Amino acid sequence: MTLNTQVQADHHAPPITRILAEFAVNHPSRGWGAAVDHEAHRTFANWVGCALGAARHETVESALSAVMLLDPSPQSCVIGRSERVDMASAALINGISSHTFDFDDTHLKTIIHPAGPVASATYALADFYKLSRRQVLDAMTLGIEVSCRVGNCIYPDHYDRGWHITGSTGMLGAAAACARLLGLNVDQTQMALGIAASQPVGVREQFGTMTKPFHPGAAAKAGLMSALLASRGFTASQRALEAPRGLIQTYSDKSDWREITEGLGERWEAGLNTYKPFACGIVAHPSIDGCAQLRRDHGFVGSEIERVTLRVHPLVLELMGKKTPRIGLEGKFSVFHAAAVGLLFGKAGIREFSDEIVQNPEVIALRDRVAAISDPSMREESADVTVELKSGVSHHVFVRHAVGSLEVPMSDDQLRQKFIDQAGPVLGLEAAEREWEGLITPCAAA
Amino acid sequence: MTLNTQVQADHHAPPITRILAEFAVNHPSRGWGAAVDHEAHRTFANWVGCALGAARHETVESALSAVMLLDPSPQSCVIGRSERVDMASAALINGISSHTFDFDDTHLKTIIHPAGPVASATYALADFYKLSRRQVLDAMTLGIEVSCRVGNCIYPDHYDRGWHITGSTGMLGAAAACARLLGLNVDQTQMALGIAASQPVGVREQFGTMTKPFHPGAAAKAGLMSALLASRGFTASQRALEAPRGLIQTYSDKSDWREITEGLGERWEAGLNTYKPFACGIVAHPSIDGCAQLRRDHGFVGSEIERVTLRVHPLVLELMGKKTPRIGLEGKFSVFHAAAVGLLFGKAGIREFSDEIVQNPEVIALRDRVAAISDPSMREESADVTVELKSGVSHHVFVRHAVGSLEVPMSDDQLRQKFIDQAGPVLGLEAAEREWEGLITPCAAA
Repeated sequence: MTLNTQVQADHHAPPITRILAEFAVNHPSRGWGAAVDHEAHRTFANWVGCALGAARHETVESALSAVMLLDPSPQSCVIGRSERVDMASAALINGISSHTFDFDDTHLKTIIHPAGPVASATYALADFYKLSRRQVLDAMTLGIEVSCRVGNCIYPDHYDRGWHITGSTGMLGAAAACARLLGLNVDQTQMALGIAASQPVGVREQFGTMTKPFHPGAAAKAGLMSALLASRGFTASQRALEAPRGLIQTYSDKSDWREITEGLGERWEAGLNTYKPFACGIVAHPSIDGCAQLRRDHGFVGSEIERVTLRVHPLVLELMGKKTPRIGLEGKFSVFHAAAVGLLFGKAGIREFSDEIVQNPEVIALRDRVAAISDPSMREESADVTVELKSGVSHHVFVRHAVGSLEVPMSDDQLRQKFIDQAGPVLGLEAAEREWEGLITPCAAA
Repeated sequence: MTLNTQVQADHHAPPITRILAEFAVNHPSRGWGAAVDHEAHRTFANWVGCALGAARHETVESALSAVMLLDPSPQSCVIGRSERVDMASAALINGISSHTFDFDDTHLKTIIHPAGPVASATYALADFYKLSRRQVLDAMTLGIEVSCRVGNCIYPDHYDRGWHITGSTGMLGAAAACARLLGLNVDQTQMALGIAASQPVGVREQFGTMTKPFHPGAAAKAGLMSALLASRGFTASQRALEAPRGLIQTYSDKSDWREITEGLGERWEAGLNTYKPFACGIVAHPSIDGCAQLRRDHGFVGSEIERVTLRVHPLVLELMGKKTPRIGLEGKFSVFHAAAVGLLFGKAGIREFSDEIVQNPEVIALRDRVAAISDPSMREESADVTVELKSGVSHHVFVRHAVGSLEVPMSDDQLRQKFIDQAGPVLGLEAAEREWEGLITPCAAA
């Protein structure tokens, strides 16, 4: 038996587990400003849209067929499908589908995708227990706050070390949210957070495989089960998060406790959520945005275009430099394809990165006329786009911040369009429109 | 987005995930010596006994009642109870019960309790699919080898950092064992290990709470689900264990790959398993063993004893120095109580650490006549015990290594007695004897 102790163990951490439990239990319903509450509505709606969009993806088919081997009880909805499964498995599957296309929400300070774990657990529990939309929004907002503040506490060391921070903080937010929904008291909620603290999910080596979206799903399930266990008297350490051998000091060399405690319940990380307008790596978003802007402002069509020139940060070509993508997935790594669909369709959603569109002759013809200049003086969040028409007319735009950034958030209408694009093929257009209205309509405090 | 890389990332690790998958799939049934196979029989039998012994403990009641909220399908047995639950939940609950009394097996090099995660997953799957005892023993032995070799690779850094290594390596052994049982091919088994690599369970801060035994249970469940997912085409990184941002380099600063690769399939960590004869912290075992030896060799009874003197390593009083324990749990932290029951009953099982025995007047009277001398010249694994009788006669024994160590392993008969003590109250004595015979009888290769 080794008796070593950690060299730099912090024995004087504030009682983080307790503080977060009190917060999750006692903070009033809709106890935040209108802007934060609207962001919560947007977060939940965007999560539903992403889960619907991937409901028939092979990743979801595979995971669901494994869950079906357990012959689960039909307690909760699998989003966008007819199957129902037990609450915990529903949290898993909906968490997987919502992250399958990497098209979900992002807390930019930590790169956490907050809704995946938290909304998935919240919705699965609420669906079974027939809880209200307000209860879901409250629980999710508080849960996201828990995940993102723990994320702020440990980022970037934790992420650099190799953890997929979405799954390795998400079980805490999911546990807090489910504890809130179940009406647990502070002691029980502290136990729920404690049980969850033993179950971080995900390493970054999994990026590019089905196990990446498994991370938010498994975190959702772990959080939900932790709350159920705590509701039945299961115990954990009262200092499971902050003790020297608790989760945070075990899996991160950085632990800035003030990121958790300062302004808790006053400023809201949940209000800083962002949404991807385009279904590909974020480095290409400024270029796509510029292309879509030029199309919208000048009304040209693809056959009129002589040449397109992108001036971009070097990282863009490093990460997305594929000149001749052959399938949808390769299209996601081609800024040339991404610019072409921006110019032709004014958007770059899941359909625009399908095999069909990547192989479309008109798209290929335009893509081949796109040039990209790697320019170290450009910022990563910016792009300079010039379109020369065959007529000799030239159009130009400089995009400082792409749509979907904190500086230029997606408008409600843009988010609605993203939702419809994903939900329409599954629900039908009319039902998708109705669903969106239901999701975005303000929900009064309980 | 951060683009830092780990300072000391090892980009040249051997293909550990592949190597372990090939091993788990291709190693022949009973492809090890008779001694290792006998140890496998003992490991499995001891695991069954421990799970039986805690089947009605409040930890198990609590966890099972939470699982019942999911309305699970009755696929697999909950050991020692009438309930049946889905395979994954059975792995969870049996893993919890087997570790509830901290009375299960130990791989001393790493302090891993190997059977908890691996046997629990193996048994749950085998019970549902009606697989043979030989298949169970093969899968468990290979799974334990996977867990313990990964443990050797990362110990002690990983443990010192705060991980409860039983749960943070156990999901790998469980995944390998379940992949073997399901007949997965090498590619699929590599995926099962990969999926499991995103799900380490447990930090040491949980010691002393119900979440400690939750760790092997949750690891069992995670490994089983990983194998089921892989069987349905779910994918993970092919280098999920060894890549720079794979599990091992993410959660440990030490990664000695040779501990995994050298002699794999030739020397067996599974053959080095040990079993606790006494249901308390291992530092008191030499003292208890000495007391039991003196009682057996000299046949005195408690009322004849004038005084007992233990000479022990200082750690014993640090960890187990409680002079006047009042309840069973406190008895586990009292070397005075432990010595008294060793002298009175010749054993120190679960019953000897119950409230009833800790509060027994005869036990208390003898306990109060036990003195312990902290002696830095004593080794941790040794104890010196002197019993002075009222008659003036004095008896003395020096215990170099306690029973249950690698040097003085528990005999089959001692292990049988431990099993009967745990299984008898649940199954009845005759059934417990029959069960033991069934478990320890050598099982031919398939």
